[in-house]
Amino acid sequence: MRVYDIIKKKRDGFELTREELSLIVKGATNKTVPEYQISAFLMAVYFRGMTRRETLDFTLEIASSGDVISPLDLDGVKVDKHSTGGVGDKTSLIISPVLSALGLKVLKMSGRGLGHTGGTVDKLSSIKGFKTELSYSEFINVCKKTGLSIIGQTKNLAPADKIFYALRDVTATVDSIPLIASSIMGKKLTASDDVIVLDVKVGDGAFMKSEEDAKNLATVMVDIGKGAGKKISAVITDMSEPLGYAVGNAIEVKEAIDVLSGKVKGDLYNVCKHLTAEILYLSNYGDFISCEKAFESAISSGLAYDKFLEFVTAQGGSLEDFETGNYLPKYKMEVLSESSGYLSKLNAEKVGVSALYLGAGRQKVDDVIDLSSGIVLNKKVGDRVEKGEILCTLYASNESLFERAKAEFLSAIEVSAKKPSDRILIKETIR
Amino acid sequence: MRVYDIIKKKRDGFELTREELSLIVKGATNKTVPEYQISAFLMAVYFRGMTRRETLDFTLEIASSGDVISPLDLDGVKVDKHSTGGVGDKTSLIISPVLSALGLKVLKMSGRGLGHTGGTVDKLSSIKGFKTELSYSEFINVCKKTGLSIIGQTKNLAPADKIFYALRDVTATVDSIPLIASSIMGKKLTASDDVIVLDVKVGDGAFMKSEEDAKNLATVMVDIGKGAGKKISAVITDMSEPLGYAVGNAIEVKEAIDVLSGKVKGDLYNVCKHLTAEILYLSNYGDFISCEKAFESAISSGLAYDKFLEFVTAQGGSLEDFETGNYLPKYKMEVLSESSGYLSKLNAEKVGVSALYLGAGRQKVDDVIDLSSGIVLNKKVGDRVEKGEILCTLYASNESLFERAKAEFLSAIEVSAKKPSDRILIKETIR
Repeated sequence: MRVYDIIKKKRDGFELTREELSLIVKGATNKTVPEYQISAFLMAVYFRGMTRRETLDFTLEIASSGDVISPLDLDGVKVDKHSTGGVGDKTSLIISPVLSALGLKVLKMSGRGLGHTGGTVDKLSSIKGFKTELSYSEFINVCKKTGLSIIGQTKNLAPADKIFYALRDVTATVDSIPLIASSIMGKKLTASDDVIVLDVKVGDGAFMKSEEDAKNLATVMVDIGKGAGKKISAVITDMSEPLGYAVGNAIEVKEAIDVLSGKVKGDLYNVCKHLTAEILYLSNYGDFISCEKAFESAISSGLAYDKFLEFVTAQGGSLEDFETGNYLPKYKMEVLSESSGYLSKLNAEKVGVSALYLGAGRQKVDDVIDLSSGIVLNKKVGDRVEKGEILCTLYASNESLFERAKAEFLSAIEVSAKKPSDRILIKETIR
Repeated sequence: MRVYDIIKKKRDGFELTREELSLIVKGATNKTVPEYQISAFLMAVYFRGMTRRETLDFTLEIASSGDVISPLDLDGVKVDKHSTGGVGDKTSLIISPVLSALGLKVLKMSGRGLGHTGGTVDKLSSIKGFKTELSYSEFINVCKKTGLSIIGQTKNLAPADKIFYALRDVTATVDSIPLIASSIMGKKLTASDDVIVLDVKVGDGAFMKSEEDAKNLATVMVDIGKGAGKKISAVITDMSEPLGYAVGNAIEVKEAIDVLSGKVKGDLYNVCKHLTAEILYLSNYGDFISCEKAFESAISSGLAYDKFLEFVTAQGGSLEDFETGNYLPKYKMEVLSESSGYLSKLNAEKVGVSALYLGAGRQKVDDVIDLSSGIVLNKKVGDRVEKGEILCTLYASNESLFERAKAEFLSAIEVSAKKPSDRILIKETIR
């Protein structure tokens, strides 16, 4: 069996065997198959797609191409929530402590942000002293002790995916459902979670711009998860505007703390409640309504915040700066509304790019970011806004960054005379 | 304009501009575009094809990616015949001297053989002293003096094509009509010929197995040639069995000499006559029948053979060995028929592979070949054959090669009770 024949078979629309897919994945990982063959294969997949069986097999091969997380001696139901990426998405910081406060185990490797979307590891890195790199045994031990540990993805986590992703990014083979699904699920299935809930974002700020695409992707990912023996579902949620009010890193941690302490409700709280309830439901915690109530009481009782504090402390972090307000950068600029009416658009991608311009995000994977910078929104879509009122506050460590960020932010918004219809935050659940 | 966007545009089925195609071709040539992007582009072309305009522009970019042959001071009508490759195809050795004997100029860069197909340069190399590498000025001067010069392709002839071809060969993107056509015509258009006749082979021993595919390829190539301002046509000829009786290098030169001296007629003579007449016709020599007659008299008058001798001598070669019969290797083996009837099949590809096993061909581009080895057929399709009669004679410099070659040859033939219907040698002409 030659790689040539595998490319040709896919090119001609035939179904590849597990062995053939394995040869591609292993060959990519150990560099025995040259990149020009991998990229031709990926383009053939772009055109021909993959069957359910192929997609599952390809994903399982990616998942087993490097390190796997399989703590045999960790008791309890292991659960995870995974978001496809958005702007202002700090749900992991809220959902994870709630779940461990309710007795479930969260053992999570998270990514860094890229482009207009943020990453959980960057947000956690903004907490003074917090270690996002732990040894495997430290990682497991923190989870054993607190029920929760979150670290950055190790270098050898699904290495095949890194190779495929880098090639797809430069060969116009990114937007292929089986390739997207196998990339996300290939990393996810390196962990031995019992329950996975996928938060598939849709809208301007998400990778999937249409509900149809989001639903297709969600369906394929749920299918892969089931094929791999997981309890899994996908919730399609809105990303037409940022989630919550904070976009950045430290300022998103502050917002997460406010939600965990019960001080702030709104869209962020509601999405977290729904996703948490979905995980609890799949974990046989009870009917959906009692699962939602469990989220509410974990917050209102203070147990969730206590768990967050315990987890942060266990990984070496201190929340003192957030208590004293000492987490913001040197400079700020208020952006005022130039007209009166209702905020009818707040393009999430553009807000993300604006935050990136302030130093909060990366254009390239090796860019260094300013964890204190970002944006705090004062208005969200549907809010009444008067001319001269503050739309948002930009935060940066360097005043020269404000001009470009402000222009980008202003291009993200629209103010209309008519109040826009309410957005639907939770679009659909695919189980 | 980024390469990524060009790949994406082709992937999405849009027509690329000349500038975009130029960026790909120049980037491949000077290695500024990585191979993984080129191979993804080629796979996208495989699926999306190319418009007539794109194919022409892509071909012209390939043709101008390296050396071009443009002798401004060479008088006369410059003509060329190009074959898509077959087994026993020594037509260039016959047609070229006939054309120059008739006053036309033939300035030809030919290829080496690969796999089961032979190459004109290998055949000429079997002539003692013949130089297939001349400087550019020597090349032009031989043509000025004799009306004819044939050398090997220079390293820098259409270098983009070499890069595309090498990648296509390992990424299952060979069988794409625009890519095949642009590869052949890209090399052909490096020369400043006025008239080009393409000999598109079809059948077992040819690259194109079906007449439909051959016709499609021929049509696209003729279209490119016209777009480049050439007088051009394509003749689709049969390659279900080898052309003529000899398959090898020196033994094919011997057969060419026999045809040029008027000693041998048959399928080889007829194909040469037709292709020559087509070139003469496009060169406004006269009506097609008088063009055919011109071929016949060039042969019967001895002028064509004299021209061949003059050309060989001008490039340092001597035909003495062919006159003395001293061109064959040390060993020979006669292959006898195992049954009686009519030869109903003589698979050209398998005969070519059999000759390759004897040392006459290359499996890889850098294989060294034995120019004296090969096969001389005694029977062709339609001939009556009795059990024990000689089907062919194998020639080799090493007796150990015979067994495998004989087995391959025997797998190429079928003997039937019923006489097969006559084959149609000239299928179609596309002008």
